[in-house]
This record gives sequence, structure tokens and C-alpha cells, in this order.
Amino acid sequence: MPVFMPVGTAASVKAVEQGVLETIGVGGHGAEIILANTYHLYLRPGHEVVRRMGGVHRFMSWERPMLTDSGGFQVFSLSGLRKVTPEGVEFRSHLDGSKHFFSPERSMDVQIALGADIAMVFDECVETPASWERTRESMGLTHDWARRSKDHFEAHKHEVPWFEAATQEQRQEQKRDAGVLPLRQAQGQNDKLNDELRGKTQSLFGIVQGGMYADLRKESAERLVEMELPGYAIGGLAVGEPREVTREMIARTLEFLPKDKPRYVMGVGYPDEIEEYAKMGVDMMDCVLPTRAGRHGLVFARDADGGVVRMNIKRREYAEDSGPIDASCGCMVCGRYSRAYLRHLFVAGEPLGLTLNSVHNLHFYLATMSRVRAELAEAGS
Amino acid sequence: MPVFMPVGTAASVKAVEQGVLETIGVGGHGAEIILANTYHLYLRPGHEVVRRMGGVHRFMSWERPMLTDSGGFQVFSLSGLRKVTPEGVEFRSHLDGSKHFFSPERSMDVQIALGADIAMVFDECVETPASWERTRESMGLTHDWARRSKDHFEAHKHEVPWFEAATQEQRQEQKRDAGVLPLRQAQGQNDKLNDELRGKTQSLFGIVQGGMYADLRKESAERLVEMELPGYAIGGLAVGEPREVTREMIARTLEFLPKDKPRYVMGVGYPDEIEEYAKMGVDMMDCVLPTRAGRHGLVFARDADGGVVRMNIKRREYAEDSGPIDASCGCMVCGRYSRAYLRHLFVAGEPLGLTLNSVHNLHFYLATMSRVRAELAEAGS
Repeated sequence: MPVFMPVGTAASVKAVEQGVLETIGVGGHGAEIILANTYHLYLRPGHEVVRRMGGVHRFMSWERPMLTDSGGFQVFSLSGLRKVTPEGVEFRSHLDGSKHFFSPERSMDVQIALGADIAMVFDECVETPASWERTRESMGLTHDWARRSKDHFEAHKHEVPWFEAATQEQRQEQKRDAGVLPLRQAQGQNDKLNDELRGKTQSLFGIVQGGMYADLRKESAERLVEMELPGYAIGGLAVGEPREVTREMIARTLEFLPKDKPRYVMGVGYPDEIEEYAKMGVDMMDCVLPTRAGRHGLVFARDADGGVVRMNIKRREYAEDSGPIDASCGCMVCGRYSRAYLRHLFVAGEPLGLTLNSVHNLHFYLATMSRVRAELAEAGS
Repeated sequence: MPVFMPVGTAASVKAVEQGVLETIGVGGHGAEIILANTYHLYLRPGHEVVRRMGGVHRFMSWERPMLTDSGGFQVFSLSGLRKVTPEGVEFRSHLDGSKHFFSPERSMDVQIALGADIAMVFDECVETPASWERTRESMGLTHDWARRSKDHFEAHKHEVPWFEAATQEQRQEQKRDAGVLPLRQAQGQNDKLNDELRGKTQSLFGIVQGGMYADLRKESAERLVEMELPGYAIGGLAVGEPREVTREMIARTLEFLPKDKPRYVMGVGYPDEIEEYAKMGVDMMDCVLPTRAGRHGLVFARDADGGVVRMNIKRREYAEDSGPIDASCGCMVCGRYSRAYLRHLFVAGEPLGLTLNSVHNLHFYLATMSRVRAELAEAGS
């Protein structure tokens, strides 16, 4: 910690192969944890399909930790025609217009079926801007839903697809300890699962809401912390508000979240933002920006002073530029390909361009976090 | 030999990174040689750009051998409104409708600027079906153009972008031999180029035409062989004719091509075809099929008898199929990902799906050629 989580919306970090994700970043250590979107996987291929395939780790062949969001944000931002009641949200799929219903219980069922290491409580994301009254009302609903999420999760967490595998494994382990089974036989397909997951269930994180009001953020944080969850997210930020407001809301929320549990800011941000928030004490962040920007030809580099430079790779000035995106970058793309080639791929609409831009940007984010971790360790020692 | 050449139309084998291309195939040896299209690179980014970037190898960071076609086939198949005269072909770009002119001399200039290891003479591709008279007339033009291609190539081959680098290298080598320069200083950027290329020029291959007429194929082969080129291609096949005709034309042409020089059939084919033609004596083949099929969700596998199976990965029957595309396949995709995941990626429109399908299919083609080489070696010993 702190870590940045690449977003694998539909169980794929867009245009980047899992083997590549495992080797980007400083020292080739790869992404520590990635995120998948509950809303997308619920609609396609369907959470029950993912459950029957052994959970999202096995489905996409990603052995490292994963997190799923609650589906709430996507329901509010992507789906058409939605109706919120205290019970939950009725919405229409952005894919085919079909009608669906998400409640805290439903979100938990879906996330347990997906089986990521970390699940999120179901929350309401209030529109922006919203009045204090409207925000407080929405926050109340979020707290109610958090409680219902936790209750349902506790009652059903053993239904996670890898739970049975784990107990079977444990049984084998017991037999092995008793000398019944040779070691080799006990090593099965389950070896593919992250060792740390075996015999465990998921962790459910809370989400603090409260819009752009510090008093509501404080209240929300306090209510969530009372629920004694293993980690807390700060949601409802980076939704169009000025950056100073984002920063202030984060600062005013962090004060009320326990330091010994992961503190996660959802959906941020630009490279300088993730650095800033990490230094403020945020442990986890996720954002589609490195991959989405990459697919639009926007790549990040550092200037001589270490400042962040945004380069639009399709600009004509790069047409015959034989240098890498960033000479100080240690990524595979900067080690092998020129700006001229990347520009050509992008202009020619070659899919490889999307991949290489995304790989570079993800490396840039992970490398930024590596440096921040080193700086924090230095400052702490 | 024999080898299959993946097609990198616009200096990228679509959706497959060069580092991956270097490691697919049996034993992880990668593709031996790839092809790039002269017509596409001429239009975008422009051959002069590629020349100034050091040639197509350096431009795309591919150190292994490459071949460029003459541009003829694409001019005849892709571009709009073309006018053929004995001088050459006037055509309109499929990208922006702009007017261009290709002649044997122009094709050579462009291919020398691109600097692939193997260049092809400029030929006319007759429409299909065409009468004997029309085909013979077109063949005559092709022979005339082959002669002009060779003459222009011989006069300008030293203009290949890596020629100067090579002579400079040679000069350094002489100095080093004379003890003037320490070894380290003599090792420069040129190390990135394939060692075998240094100080050499490109090889120009001829193209046999003659449509679906065996007597014309014989005549064309004989005319080309008289030109004493370092390799010969059989063009104008796999353009819609029945497969028996393709096979017969290949057989009836191979007889008249020297066995001690590479014999290349352009633009074929399905996995069983490349195996068949390789066993008939064809040394080189190229085809967009493995990558294009992959992008359309079509992947190849082998049945229990070693026969080729074409699977449409988007079929519902694969939705919960946890097996690989082909259990007997040694590729990275089959080693890691399930049919269910590949189907999901394809149905969800994830770019990773295009990549993984293409990687598997390319491996399938290269593995097929590895096996054929082993069988031919066995039969020959």
C-alpha cells in the first residue's frame, strides 16, 4: 500500500493481456490488484456463468487479488431510465434496454458469485451538484443499504465459488497431515488460486458518501466505521467537481477512517492526483484513465522536473520522432517502440496502438505508486 | 524452409505485439519472417517516412527477416478507379480517394525505401475469370514489368536505408581491426539490425503469373527464371478459383522453378492448404487468414485424427466451456485461457479477444509448418 488498481471492466483490462499486466511496473512486478465491474459482468456474461466457471479469478485467469465494485455507480451513470426506492434500483441495461433490479442483497449475491477478494457495499451515488438536503437523504439510504449489504454478505459469504474448493483443499490438507495422501496428489487445480485466498471468504468494504459537504462526509464515515468493516472507500468524488473540492473531501473524510484499515478512493484520477492522494494517506485507488486515455492516443510522460506531461500521440510532430514516449520510463513500450511508430499505429487504426499506449500508461501509474511507496517509507523511517 | 509468413499489413501483425510474435510457435521460437504491404505503407505513413526512420525493421522494431509485396495486388484489389497502361497503374487511394501512380520503377523505389529483406517485382494481377488471350496479354505485361523492376532495382538497391549504416559499420570494423577503435565504441545502434543484413542489399523475387492456364504458367515461369532472380513467387492464385485448380496451377508451375531457390506461393491459405503446398515443395507462404479469422472469432483446432477443425468462438455452446481452444496446442492462449473466457471477450467486444484469437491462430499455423518441416526432414533422410 498504497496501490493503484487497473480497471478490468468486463474481466479484461482493455487491450492488455493478463501476462503483460503481471509484468508491467517497476521491476516487472506487475499490477498488485485489479478491479472488475459488477454491473458489466452481471449483464455479460452473467454472474451465474462466472460462478460456474469458478469465479472471476479463474474465469479470466488472474491469480492475484481482485476487487469488484457494487454496481451502484454504473447503474447511476450508464443505465437508462432508473427508479430508486428504499428497496433498491430498477434500471435498464445499456446493452439491450432490458429491465433489471439491484438491491443491496442483489449486489451482494452478484459479487459473491463473481468472487473477487474484495466486494463493495451497494451505495446510492447522488447526482452532482446536489443540495445538502438531497445529499443527506441519499446518504441515509446509502447507510441503510450498507447495513443490509453487510447482513446479507455475512449470511451468504460462504457461497463464494472458491469456498468449497478451499474446504476440499483443507480436507486434503488434513488427510495429507495424517499421511493418507502423498503431497503430489494433494496439489490440484486449486494451486492456480492465490494461496492467500484458500479457505477464506471475501472482504466487504464500506463506501462513504456525503457529496461535497464535509459535515456529511464526517457523519457518513462515522456511521460506516461503526459497522466494523475491513476497509472503507470514499465514493461519489471525481464526478465533475473542482479538484480542490475533491482534495478537501478526501482530507475531511480520511480523518474519520481508521488508519489500520485500507482507505480507498474510488475512480481517481490523473497521475498527479493519485500521487497527491496517496501522500495524504489513501491506500487504494482505481481509474479507467490510463487505459481509456491510451485508447484515445493520450500518453503520459515526465518532464525534466518530474512533472506530468500529457502527450497526444497522434500529433504530426511525432511522425518522425524516433525517441520513446518517455526516455526515463522503464516500460516495455518505451524500451522498444518509437513515438513515430506509436503515432503511425494510432493514425492507421491498428489495434496494437491501443495496447501499447495502454501498457505504457498503466506502467506509468504503477511506477508512480512505486515511487510514492518508497518516498513514504523513507519519510516514515 | 518451408515457412509461413504472418502478414503485418501496415507494419503491424494486427493486434499482436512484436514481442509476442517472437515467441509464438513450437519451442517459443517465434515467426521466422513476416510480411508488410507496400501499398499500405506507401499511403500511410509514407515510404519516405519509413526510410527516414531507418527502414521498416527499425520503424516497427522487428529484427528478423521481412518481405514486402510489390503493391500490385492491393492496387488491383483495394483501390478504386484504376487505369492500367504499359507504363504502370494509376489508382485512387482507398483511404482518401487521392490519385497515385505505381510503375515497376515506382514500386522498386518504394520497396527500397521500406527496406525489407525481400522485395517483389511489380506485377499485374489479372481479373478472375479471364480468357486465355486476356491472361496471356496480362502475363506479357507482368514479364515486361519484372524486367523493368529488376533493372531499376539493380540501379538503386544501394539506396536501401540500412545500406549506409552497413558500410559505416564495415568502416568501423576495419578501424577496429586496425586497433583504432575499442570494441565497445564500435557497437552502436546498428546492433539492433539483424546481423545477417549488414552490408547487404535486398533480394528481389520474381512473380509467376498466367492465371488458371498451365501452359501460360509454364511460359511465365520460364521467362522469370531467365532473369536469374534469387527467388520466385507464384502469384494470382487463391482469388476465388476452386481449390483443385489452385493445387494444379501450383504443381504445374513448381516443375519449372529451380529447387535451389525459394519458391513462394502468395496469399494462401487454410491450414490444410499450407500443409499440402509445403509438401508439394513450396518454401514460403503468407496469408491474412490466421489474423483476420481470429478477429472474426474463427479459431483453428485439431481433432483426434489431426484434422483441422474451424471453431466459431462466439457460439453459445462455448459459454461455459472451461477447456482451451485446443488441448493439444502448446500456445500461450491455450495454456491460460478457456473457450468460455474467449467467447466472453469476443461477445463483449473486448480488444483482448482479437489478440488472443490471433495469437492462437498464428501459433497454429507456425506449429503446422514446424511439423511439416520435421516430416519433410524425416522423409528426406
